[in-house]
Amino acid sequence: MPISENVKNAIIDAVEKGFADQIEFTKTLVRFPSTRGNEHEIVKFITEELVQRGYEIDQFDIDRTAIEGHEGGGKFSSEHSTAPIVVGTHQPRHEVGRTLILQSHVDVVPSGPEDMWSHPPFEPHVKDGWLYGRGGADMKAGQAQIFFAMDALSRAGFVPAARVHLQTVVEEESTGNGALMTYLRGYDADAVLIPEPEEEMLVRANVGTLWFQVEVRGMPVHVREMGSGANAIDAAYRVIGALRGLEDAWNAEKADHRFFEDVEHPINLNIGKIEGGDWASSVPSWCRVDCRVAIYPGMKAVDAARQIKDTISAFAAKDAYLSESSPIVTFNGFFSEGYILEPGSDAETILGRAHRAATGENLQSFVTPGYLDCRVYQLYNQIPSLCYGPVSENIHGVDERVSVESIRRTTIAMALFIAEWCGVEAIGR
Amino acid sequence: MPISENVKNAIIDAVEKGFADQIEFTKTLVRFPSTRGNEHEIVKFITEELVQRGYEIDQFDIDRTAIEGHEGGGKFSSEHSTAPIVVGTHQPRHEVGRTLILQSHVDVVPSGPEDMWSHPPFEPHVKDGWLYGRGGADMKAGQAQIFFAMDALSRAGFVPAARVHLQTVVEEESTGNGALMTYLRGYDADAVLIPEPEEEMLVRANVGTLWFQVEVRGMPVHVREMGSGANAIDAAYRVIGALRGLEDAWNAEKADHRFFEDVEHPINLNIGKIEGGDWASSVPSWCRVDCRVAIYPGMKAVDAARQIKDTISAFAAKDAYLSESSPIVTFNGFFSEGYILEPGSDAETILGRAHRAATGENLQSFVTPGYLDCRVYQLYNQIPSLCYGPVSENIHGVDERVSVESIRRTTIAMALFIAEWCGVEAIGR
Repeated sequence: MPISENVKNAIIDAVEKGFADQIEFTKTLVRFPSTRGNEHEIVKFITEELVQRGYEIDQFDIDRTAIEGHEGGGKFSSEHSTAPIVVGTHQPRHEVGRTLILQSHVDVVPSGPEDMWSHPPFEPHVKDGWLYGRGGADMKAGQAQIFFAMDALSRAGFVPAARVHLQTVVEEESTGNGALMTYLRGYDADAVLIPEPEEEMLVRANVGTLWFQVEVRGMPVHVREMGSGANAIDAAYRVIGALRGLEDAWNAEKADHRFFEDVEHPINLNIGKIEGGDWASSVPSWCRVDCRVAIYPGMKAVDAARQIKDTISAFAAKDAYLSESSPIVTFNGFFSEGYILEPGSDAETILGRAHRAATGENLQSFVTPGYLDCRVYQLYNQIPSLCYGPVSENIHGVDERVSVESIRRTTIAMALFIAEWCGVEAIGR
Repeated sequence: MPISENVKNAIIDAVEKGFADQIEFTKTLVRFPSTRGNEHEIVKFITEELVQRGYEIDQFDIDRTAIEGHEGGGKFSSEHSTAPIVVGTHQPRHEVGRTLILQSHVDVVPSGPEDMWSHPPFEPHVKDGWLYGRGGADMKAGQAQIFFAMDALSRAGFVPAARVHLQTVVEEESTGNGALMTYLRGYDADAVLIPEPEEEMLVRANVGTLWFQVEVRGMPVHVREMGSGANAIDAAYRVIGALRGLEDAWNAEKADHRFFEDVEHPINLNIGKIEGGDWASSVPSWCRVDCRVAIYPGMKAVDAARQIKDTISAFAAKDAYLSESSPIVTFNGFFSEGYILEPGSDAETILGRAHRAATGENLQSFVTPGYLDCRVYQLYNQIPSLCYGPVSENIHGVDERVSVESIRRTTIAMALFIAEWCGVEAIGR
């Protein structure tokens, strides 16, 4: 049942009053250079913030054995983070509403060449209505929204009338193992909201993602005998060409995949990193290529992995050099399936109402061709999984930025959603 | 005038008697992991060996200003070696013969992946007549030959009847600046012999070499927006394609280049090293490619460099992405012209006679498509420059090896050449 106008107005007012602090808090979060493996400090900071607010704390490590036993577990490599997961839990006096998980991640992607940035990536600043900084949009603004939406309820005199878990994870950008670990730890609720930067829209469907590395080795020789040696860098590019063929084949099937029919290029194969050879005057004997590819919802990661391996093997068998020295394919990160949020859930209806109250607009949904932790909740918890958050530009790019006014609007929407989904109980009564 | 049978036999006998020690000495040299920038220890060792044998010592650094002022100077980068050059000089009591430079280099190329080697690359061993180890063939066997050919003369009771410079340089594998520095220091003679591993043949002509790096930068974006970003790794490969076009054009001209008409593929463009991107899930914003290309004798390095730059610029101008962000081309190593050893010199005649005495065969000549320090002596000292040495396999590759019996034969040839070119004077008389 919709919340009363009085409660609604009190919550909106509380968000507004806290908003300057919220932006400062977001900037504080951006100052942590929490790239993969370097999230320990920010998790500690988040934990202290949860403690100060009186949440019950559960901090735990990612359990490699448990993750490896699950079909959606991302593959471990030496780069896997060892930072812990932290969950803060709100318990109401009387549980009358529906329970909720609010999740964010604190890992951020590498900044790339810093000299391409207008300002240093971990020194946040606001200009022309945008908050700049690596990870500001993706998703430290969202992490701050979770705290400040809940705080706004408190300042308005309420707490949710149901259990709420504030879950802060790592590994969202590389394996999704942080979110999966909360599921394996036993966390569950009636719905989840993840405030990723989604243009004030709701994610209707989302691809799965696989990471893999292709390693080519060749016989190194002096350049004077170049014809007799195999150049591993050239060979690696031939393998990339074969993988582009698979990408094309998968994109050509988009009409068969609900919600993806009209996405221009739903399946992106990204050649993200390459390293090969020792110096200019030796024919390179090795080359490693790190790739990321998307898959449609409903395709199992293990089936996609088999197709990738088969594509490379079939190509290598016909290649004069590669047939002698078959490329090694290693899955070393994401190994995840996509998901669809079926239209018509109560959770979506209530978020739609909250969004309209905050923005005056109807909530639009869309399809994203990137990984989202919502897949854990939608596929394994099997609960409505809402990915919804502020307008951003250049996430994962140079001068990543998030709209300050959009943070304001979506924080209001989040706070109203929490109040209506969980119900509210007055503090101290 | 040919040396007498008695002198000849005494020298051959002395080489044979010293040969076991010579192989041990070669192995000692291989144990120095003297890759670029790491040659200080081996230069110190060589210097001590020169001192022990009574040579006059001149040790000096590479003078960057002097090198940069010379058209054949290799381009400096942060990887340029700071190891010194050492020259040991033999002065006869009475100079009656022709003066000679014996040159070798002690820098070796990187070993590549060590697990591809049968034995660790810097632990030399002999098996089935081959001496294995990185740098054993190229050219620590040659460095040892210089010492032991001269030692054999001494043991036979003679010294050269002319000034002989034993020149040990670095940077042969990357800029050629070590050899050029000896020229700029003022070293000169009537001929030079460099015992590179040349299959017991004489190098008739040799290409020049240029090193350059191509750097591509792109706007990094999230893979979900891949179409709007430019993948720097993909773009780098398009540039490589354009350079392959230049390579094809240069090879197509081979009929116009004396001694190269029948070489199958004289101009090799090697893509030796590549690095790009930060990780799988970001569209890479940068990629650097290290290249090495050959040029025919007679073509100036500066003209080749202009053609390379022009090729890349012309391609970039037509490329949707590269026209917005033109690749940066940096020449960062070899900047050298090729050379031709004109047939008919006395030096060649005398080496031919020595080779026949050592092997029973006529001396063959051939053309090599790799850099050689002889270019300094042929182009700038303008003296007959003999590149001649033992049979090898896999130089710059895995399990680099040099034939022990070929070392023996070519050491005899070298000792006889020195004796006849310089003349001999009996020790102590």
